[in-house]
Amino acid sequence: MSLFDHVLTQDGLIAKESLLYPFEERGLQFGDGVYEVIRIYQGKYDLLEEHIDRLFRSAEAIRLEVPFMKDELITSLQKLTDRNDVQTDAKLYLQVTRGSAPREHSFPDVPSNFYAYIEQSDRPVSLLQHGVRAILADDIRWDLCYIKSLNLLPNILAKQTAKEKGAFEAILHKQGIVTEGSSSNVFMIKGQILYTHPAADNILHGCVRKKVLALASRAGLQVAETAFTIDQLLHADEIFITSTTSEIMPIIEVEGKTISNGVPGDKTRVLQRAYENESGIHATAFA
Amino acid sequence: MSLFDHVLTQDGLIAKESLLYPFEERGLQFGDGVYEVIRIYQGKYDLLEEHIDRLFRSAEAIRLEVPFMKDELITSLQKLTDRNDVQTDAKLYLQVTRGSAPREHSFPDVPSNFYAYIEQSDRPVSLLQHGVRAILADDIRWDLCYIKSLNLLPNILAKQTAKEKGAFEAILHKQGIVTEGSSSNVFMIKGQILYTHPAADNILHGCVRKKVLALASRAGLQVAETAFTIDQLLHADEIFITSTTSEIMPIIEVEGKTISNGVPGDKTRVLQRAYENESGIHATAFA
Repeated sequence: MSLFDHVLTQDGLIAKESLLYPFEERGLQFGDGVYEVIRIYQGKYDLLEEHIDRLFRSAEAIRLEVPFMKDELITSLQKLTDRNDVQTDAKLYLQVTRGSAPREHSFPDVPSNFYAYIEQSDRPVSLLQHGVRAILADDIRWDLCYIKSLNLLPNILAKQTAKEKGAFEAILHKQGIVTEGSSSNVFMIKGQILYTHPAADNILHGCVRKKVLALASRAGLQVAETAFTIDQLLHADEIFITSTTSEIMPIIEVEGKTISNGVPGDKTRVLQRAYENESGIHATAFA
Repeated sequence: MSLFDHVLTQDGLIAKESLLYPFEERGLQFGDGVYEVIRIYQGKYDLLEEHIDRLFRSAEAIRLEVPFMKDELITSLQKLTDRNDVQTDAKLYLQVTRGSAPREHSFPDVPSNFYAYIEQSDRPVSLLQHGVRAILADDIRWDLCYIKSLNLLPNILAKQTAKEKGAFEAILHKQGIVTEGSSSNVFMIKGQILYTHPAADNILHGCVRKKVLALASRAGLQVAETAFTIDQLLHADEIFITSTTSEIMPIIEVEGKTISNGVPGDKTRVLQRAYENESGIHATAFA
């Protein structure tokens, strides 16, 4: 994955090489910040306003100032794709931290640090076609996972375990209740009902999650934002996860148990096609 | 607080100005690392081996490699105080992260980043003499707080709230059970018994905490590593918190309720003196 040359900071566009941080930075010492990953299809942002809205919600929740107004940020991000002449499928990463200051737990009186950069990112077409495996893992995270914060240690530990077990994702559960994936939301289909954990404080309110709920009727599905157990998950007709880069990713095996005969289910496929359609993706993965 | 000029990295001693990090650093993007703060009294480390042992335990818990052997690290930290000619009371901060690599949740195949720096830090003598106020706050942290990780967002939010309410510390509780402070361990004395939360996975196993337990008999106290409720805390005879920089800090008010008539208790004072004695502190705060 190669990075595009220019990055955006609170001071405007700069060359990526010159973006360096001192060792006393709130992100580096406390994970004191929030972030977003935004999909770019053929040079155009997908769900841009939704992501920016969530960024501001996350920042507000930890009382962190984003050094842009919403409109100004959206304009600046457009300038970033323009300046880098982004034409391909890519993704934008951005984060805001509480600035560079001598280390002390309480808030420093310094400006926030902001940066955003773009890297090429192909759609995971083969995986979207064939589905992926998942494992189960305890949800040991803090209580406020709706905040998209830089405190990601439990997430990376779960993801690494999944990878080592040959799986794509770790599906997290708290006392037997499925919450979400280590970097995705989790859905299951049983009969005509699409289930997913309610958008409570303890899960991320995914932008793709929301879009999928809006698309459900196209697959003849009713929506139930109702938590479900591991046992219910393992007996689902179909399972998929959603995220900005994984889109609607079918799960065909959970912790060694085959789901929907080991192939992506029909209703999942309908949702995948609807998603492509809504996002203006021309080259379908499902011809 | 001024920093000493030289810092220690995995590559040896360097000038602090040249210690800069790229924006794709695991600490900065995931809080993927662990840290320690070590007290220096008159140029000499206090509890050095205990802190280094804990650093290695934290690192092992998140499967992170410390780029030094224990002995080598201790020797290098001694060189750091020598090179900076540290003679005063100070503190060392060190952290290890999973390195600089393109952002992906799973572990990268790159070397860890390490840095350690020293800053002057006077003992909080007046506060140790007169005691401080605390507030109560929900413990919303993850399940593995024994790992001294860089995921400190809930801790800083609690500390900031304390500061804004004119308090020194936020005492955290989970469903009514006191766990620890936002950056300290919590103790209460009732009768002849010194209570503190057991060294379970959900609290930090403080180096000063351990030392205080060893000193308890000098104050005629029995030790009970037993969790207690908010209600029990509010009816304690004496309360104090412990940390590397706060030592044994008396709490004279919790959430507006006066404790031990608003002055540090006698048994707390005995422990404070014993602590000074054990640490080889010559200039007593309690003459």
